[in-house]
Amino acid sequence: MNPKINMLSASCPMPKMDFDIITLGHGSGGLLTNKLLESGVFNLLSNEYLDQKHDGAMLNVDGKIAFSTDSYVISPIFFPGGNIGELAVNGTVNDLAMCGAKAKYLSLSFIIEEGLSMEEFWEILLTIKLAAERAKVQIVTGDTKVVERGKGDKIFINTSGIGTVHSRADISIRNVKKGDKIIVSGQIATHGIAIMSVREGLDFETTIQSDTCHFNDVVSDILDRFGSDIHLFRDPTRGGVATVLNEIARDSNLGVIIDQKNINVCDDVEGACELLGLDPLYVANEGVFIAVVNEEVATDVLAEIQKWKNGKDAFIIGEVVEAHPRQVIINSAIGGKRVVNMLLGEQLPRIC
Amino acid sequence: MNPKINMLSASCPMPKMDFDIITLGHGSGGLLTNKLLESGVFNLLSNEYLDQKHDGAMLNVDGKIAFSTDSYVISPIFFPGGNIGELAVNGTVNDLAMCGAKAKYLSLSFIIEEGLSMEEFWEILLTIKLAAERAKVQIVTGDTKVVERGKGDKIFINTSGIGTVHSRADISIRNVKKGDKIIVSGQIATHGIAIMSVREGLDFETTIQSDTCHFNDVVSDILDRFGSDIHLFRDPTRGGVATVLNEIARDSNLGVIIDQKNINVCDDVEGACELLGLDPLYVANEGVFIAVVNEEVATDVLAEIQKWKNGKDAFIIGEVVEAHPRQVIINSAIGGKRVVNMLLGEQLPRIC
Repeated sequence: MNPKINMLSASCPMPKMDFDIITLGHGSGGLLTNKLLESGVFNLLSNEYLDQKHDGAMLNVDGKIAFSTDSYVISPIFFPGGNIGELAVNGTVNDLAMCGAKAKYLSLSFIIEEGLSMEEFWEILLTIKLAAERAKVQIVTGDTKVVERGKGDKIFINTSGIGTVHSRADISIRNVKKGDKIIVSGQIATHGIAIMSVREGLDFETTIQSDTCHFNDVVSDILDRFGSDIHLFRDPTRGGVATVLNEIARDSNLGVIIDQKNINVCDDVEGACELLGLDPLYVANEGVFIAVVNEEVATDVLAEIQKWKNGKDAFIIGEVVEAHPRQVIINSAIGGKRVVNMLLGEQLPRIC
Repeated sequence: MNPKINMLSASCPMPKMDFDIITLGHGSGGLLTNKLLESGVFNLLSNEYLDQKHDGAMLNVDGKIAFSTDSYVISPIFFPGGNIGELAVNGTVNDLAMCGAKAKYLSLSFIIEEGLSMEEFWEILLTIKLAAERAKVQIVTGDTKVVERGKGDKIFINTSGIGTVHSRADISIRNVKKGDKIIVSGQIATHGIAIMSVREGLDFETTIQSDTCHFNDVVSDILDRFGSDIHLFRDPTRGGVATVLNEIARDSNLGVIIDQKNINVCDDVEGACELLGLDPLYVANEGVFIAVVNEEVATDVLAEIQKWKNGKDAFIIGEVVEAHPRQVIINSAIGGKRVVNMLLGEQLPRIC
């Protein structure tokens, strides 16, 4: 477990409950559901919207909003650098950020397998609270279902989010054009390898930690300064950088060329990839995003990202070209060129 | 399966795919996910928002909105009168309606167990399309995850929704006051008993069908006419009418009194309840809602609901009183009085 969270857990102990594990009754909608929500969820995540305990939250929103959803099914639910709760908050906040929007409100829906310990559930709730505070989002509505043992896997979480689109944002695949530079905000493949190491029981000199974090502030800073010179944001989660670049090439009807020497992977992760026979370009990320930007501002955007606490390893990996439309080509480290395809099949299930 | 849907299925046959079942690769985020989405989801549910294929949808919304979420884990996924897809659309549309809002946009997130047949998935998608058309909502963003066999149960669906709050709506537990009448929009317990009959293999003279439907139009009509005289809407799903009435009593700090003779249950459902030893007040509903309204307009609201095609069996079941705060009392058919508590434990898991 994440040491940060254990500290939080100590400072915010689980309330005394008359049950140690989640049972089917906690999903009944009746007295037990009410007990679970009152003693746990509502207290911890309390805000003016959630406190109304209605079927939904009533919000005041003006202008253009972004709306996104993701279900999180990661296994294991606790991993080095975080847990499923943190991922569920950051992931949806980041999907909104990729639309050029600042996440404001999240919904939170649990599908719990009967038998999950209250201690684990409490730990996840605490992490959700902390991650929401960090990203400055409020959890305003929710749902709790419980399924029988063997019909789920500990806990699945759906978060959906509403964000306000930045007034200067004009993020669209239609804006991507020849010459645009492609920036990656940090070292790639870290999250995927962190999960894979735990699952495969791999031992490295240091524990590889997931780099999950939220992009709310950095995206807002970039848009403040560069507005419509930012043509596209994408976060390369499942399928990795390679798949996102292929989607960009396909949907823009242009080509993408990248340089292998500019692909930044930390040594431990690179070592693990070699050991496992994986190409880091296909490994899932949670802590990095891709920006496709007007070439004239590319180095300035890069510098702006590098000011962000998780952005010091940002780099320009390539550009958009007219040649080879709908194809991604890599200049390899040893001088050749090869086509980079979309991820085929499943590299590692349940990475997020 | 629902005969309506089978007709739709015939008129909108499944596209030819090179796979018969959903595999882990369809949740990879890579090529297989793209194939599944392109050939199925995007074609079928196409609209200007979904077609952007971004991490989220960008929407223009003004003023007060409602935001709600629900995960659907019903078992079996196909049942008399509907399937999980229809429930997932109607359920979230109705949660928004209960906030006095007209649902406009839905997100759609699947957690699929490896091995689900494409045929079943296609059937569910078709139903979703149809239910969304009926409720006049657009599915604007989504997510697809696949978990290993034995780690899920065929398919779970989360929908989250955004609706615009009716300009005349003022729905809040704080508005509930002494003398308010409590209206139920139809015969209760039908959905729960429909599911239970299938699961228990019960045989009745006629098949009991789920009454799942959307409340978008009827709620809008009621608010057009009665505005702030409508104090509260709630849909008595899990936990049934008894649990919702208890929540109303608890949160308003007032009492609720209802008359057993006014509780409307269809004969087949009543027979099944007797057979199973169940009180219909605790059985889950999908096709009925509860309105708590100013007593002066109660009979007019009742008449308005009865004009709705699913409202002919609407009835006033009781009222809000100052006596016995936080308690629900029923005048029984044989003349006595008894306390009606919240559902304790789980009557039937996975009813929605």
